[in-house]
Amino acid sequence: MASSAAEEVIMSNRRVIMSNRRVILKGHVTGVLTEDDMELVTAAVGIAVPAGSTAVLVKILYLSVDPYMRIRMRNHLEPNYIPDFVPGEVMATLGVSKVVASGHPDFKTGDHVWGMMGCEEYTLVSHPESLFKINHPEFPLSYYIGVLGMTGLSAYAGFFDVAKPKKGDYVFVSAASGAIGQLVGQLAKIKGCYVVGSAGSDEKVNLLKTKFGFDDAFNYKKEQDLNATLKRCFPQGIDIYFENVGGAMLDTVLLNMRIRGQIVACGMISQYNLERPEGIRNLFSIVTKRIRMEGFIVLDYFGTYRKFEEEMAGYIKEGKIACVEDVAEGIENVPAELIGLFSGSNVGKKLVIIAQE
Amino acid sequence: MASSAAEEVIMSNRRVIMSNRRVILKGHVTGVLTEDDMELVTAAVGIAVPAGSTAVLVKILYLSVDPYMRIRMRNHLEPNYIPDFVPGEVMATLGVSKVVASGHPDFKTGDHVWGMMGCEEYTLVSHPESLFKINHPEFPLSYYIGVLGMTGLSAYAGFFDVAKPKKGDYVFVSAASGAIGQLVGQLAKIKGCYVVGSAGSDEKVNLLKTKFGFDDAFNYKKEQDLNATLKRCFPQGIDIYFENVGGAMLDTVLLNMRIRGQIVACGMISQYNLERPEGIRNLFSIVTKRIRMEGFIVLDYFGTYRKFEEEMAGYIKEGKIACVEDVAEGIENVPAELIGLFSGSNVGKKLVIIAQE
Repeated sequence: MASSAAEEVIMSNRRVIMSNRRVILKGHVTGVLTEDDMELVTAAVGIAVPAGSTAVLVKILYLSVDPYMRIRMRNHLEPNYIPDFVPGEVMATLGVSKVVASGHPDFKTGDHVWGMMGCEEYTLVSHPESLFKINHPEFPLSYYIGVLGMTGLSAYAGFFDVAKPKKGDYVFVSAASGAIGQLVGQLAKIKGCYVVGSAGSDEKVNLLKTKFGFDDAFNYKKEQDLNATLKRCFPQGIDIYFENVGGAMLDTVLLNMRIRGQIVACGMISQYNLERPEGIRNLFSIVTKRIRMEGFIVLDYFGTYRKFEEEMAGYIKEGKIACVEDVAEGIENVPAELIGLFSGSNVGKKLVIIAQE
Repeated sequence: MASSAAEEVIMSNRRVIMSNRRVILKGHVTGVLTEDDMELVTAAVGIAVPAGSTAVLVKILYLSVDPYMRIRMRNHLEPNYIPDFVPGEVMATLGVSKVVASGHPDFKTGDHVWGMMGCEEYTLVSHPESLFKINHPEFPLSYYIGVLGMTGLSAYAGFFDVAKPKKGDYVFVSAASGAIGQLVGQLAKIKGCYVVGSAGSDEKVNLLKTKFGFDDAFNYKKEQDLNATLKRCFPQGIDIYFENVGGAMLDTVLLNMRIRGQIVACGMISQYNLERPEGIRNLFSIVTKRIRMEGFIVLDYFGTYRKFEEEMAGYIKEGKIACVEDVAEGIENVPAELIGLFSGSNVGKKLVIIAQE
């Protein structure tokens, strides 16, 4: 149990005081993210909510580690779609947790919830309206930061709402064994598309073909000529590109799109550690091929979450969607796990067990 | 009269033989287009259509000079949206002409038509179904390669069908005094948008503000910091960017789009003379701002032409749309006029008078 050693119970004025380990951003990050950019500190937390507050205090069970967290470590000169992390303060991410104290009528002690939390062992959630109660306890709780959480909703919304696929479409997914990619590929198969994925190791490629049912897959690190690879995989061109990586892959995909193809821009992980993003030179293909390239942010789809949750829960029960999680344990490992995303060390959805119940 | 000196009538077997001056592409072009890449040659043409053919022979009155012609001078390794010009053969462009011989029941001698023709004085149109008869003789014939032709349809389809504007939208148009830009700006004003244009001279900027009713305009060649300029013109950001130029302008616009803004990719004239297009580095804005960038090709809208023609004719009659043409004279000047587009020598729609009726 990750946090047991750190837990120290002190009775003080009838409030239970626990030690709370948290991951702090030391300063805004430029260039490649390293462990020195973050620090694990221990604070004390009282197991109660402030008197009169509608806040909820949760004990975190699982934390999600996602590429977009790197974006929040920059110092943006202009407002971004999500606020930058503040140096010296705890970082935030999505988590699954158990309510340990509540000032809100909709949440009671013992409820399981998922939502945005601090990278720590206990979080006081000031606006618990942002939390989702867990409706399907029959699934592993960790699914709620993966296939049944923001990751799943990203894949679902990006693929169905933004790409608007048709049966028989030729679909290409980059970072395809990653948290979102693996689900996009499987949703595309459910829709009746032909799906090819790229990944960064033979192990991942094998997973795509055997576990996730991709029609084809390749290890981009072994391909000498990406353009030739895409032409081999898509002799007729790509109808839908689900973009997770950016850079050279995007530039090459632009040359291999079909007329009126869709590029769904979900993320560009290859660019997040670069101070100066790579230049994309083949954008004129957007004109000549009448391509639609459209970005989306999953936050915009949270209002549709319950509908998604039921549909995805159904697919999992029917065996139509599998998911692979890459699990680490211990709050102290969050920094290394986050850094590992950018070298592709994870296989599947990266998450960290923070505590057993 | 441009072609009178060259016309030589020879009676031969009851067919009239005319001299036909034509602009030939000498070879596929790399880098900056020069006059050496084209050649004016004189051939003979018989004023008749082949026996049994449904072709139409036209005498060309006006030829259009458009940036996309440069694209057709490349040697594309893969099929493009429109075929490459063939070295040693006559180039093609849109023109307005008069039928001088017809094998097609829908066209008779004396009809005025517009459509794709050779860069020459007389063209045999093998598939006259591609020609449009001119329905509004009350306008100058030259309008049919400009505001009432492909240029107008490009502006109309790109703005209304691709951008899908709303009243009050903040619209930015690059190359705004050009053939398409000037019309997009005026259509945006008709729609009730706020419109700013960029152009490459103070004369053009003045035209945008005084003749075309743009709310604001700037000379991009005089601005030290394009990002600061766009922030000054659009403190609230850009809802719709009508993209005619590409390169640094596009990269800077990406930083100044509003959330859920639209980029309509019509053309990227700054890139056509480059063998290696400039790299665009700010594409991640497409994700964070949920931008839709979509290209279009006017050929796809030719089926909607008659509807467009009536609406645009109405605007012109009501004084809601003005147009400025930059007129040269003589087939021999087509190469220089085409080259001039890429240095911005034209003010408004570039066309060449080939013959009086």
